[in-house]
Amino acid sequence: MKKIEHIGIAVKDLEAANATYKAVLGSKHYKTETVESEGVSTSFFKIGDSKIELLAATNPESPIAKFIEKRGEGIHHLAFAVDNIKAEIARLEKEGFKLINTKPKEGADNKLVAFMHPKSSHGVLVELCQEK
Amino acid sequence: MKKIEHIGIAVKDLEAANATYKAVLGSKHYKTETVESEGVSTSFFKIGDSKIELLAATNPESPIAKFIEKRGEGIHHLAFAVDNIKAEIARLEKEGFKLINTKPKEGADNKLVAFMHPKSSHGVLVELCQEK
Repeated sequence: MKKIEHIGIAVKDLEAANATYKAVLGSKHYKTETVESEGVSTSFFKIGDSKIELLAATNPESPIAKFIEKRGEGIHHLAFAVDNIKAEIARLEKEGFKLINTKPKEGADNKLVAFMHPKSSHGVLVELCQEK
Repeated sequence: MKKIEHIGIAVKDLEAANATYKAVLGSKHYKTETVESEGVSTSFFKIGDSKIELLAATNPESPIAKFIEKRGEGIHHLAFAVDNIKAEIARLEKEGFKLINTKPKEGADNKLVAFMHPKSSHGVLVELCQEK
């Protein structure tokens, strides 16, 4: 793992959260993107060498809607940048970790992504991200 | 805010979690520290320009014990590095945010710290950290 690529935060209202995080971070989000296949609208803020990704559900079946229903708004996942996502998936499986995605899939922000099962990592939903 | 200083992860068993995160990140924690006044034992991993801080309770009244009891293990807080914590607290209060600590207090890792109320920031417990 090279660095923290981003922190994903589940929010109910993307516009309200954009205003909040602009005030917290002192700078505006630099892009928004909807990933219909994942049921999310996202916005991105730069912070140092990492990003904050706000995630709002686009439909009630979205994993973000279910997360908020169960736990409320808050940090949803922790994403690490990797150079070679396939090699990293293979390495983690060999270490005994359970991956939700054993093959990379298309994610937001021009990335190939894969999630680890939170039970493998003390309750943290870890995402691997490789720049495409 | 300059960068993500660290991500704090609440865990039940620090040694087990150290082994897990060594395997995930590919490198060992570089220090451990107990902050008795906060009821936590911590360990730190470097990752890019940021850190992962694992937090385990040292007693049943610890905020970490209560967090795990309520929500299970997982991401506990998100910490940003700031140059001048007093100025940042004043700025955030002026923006209308609620701070848990309106004055900086001693934290782990040779830092002055202050926490924002999670209700102010869409369920995220935000920590400000200034190097001492």
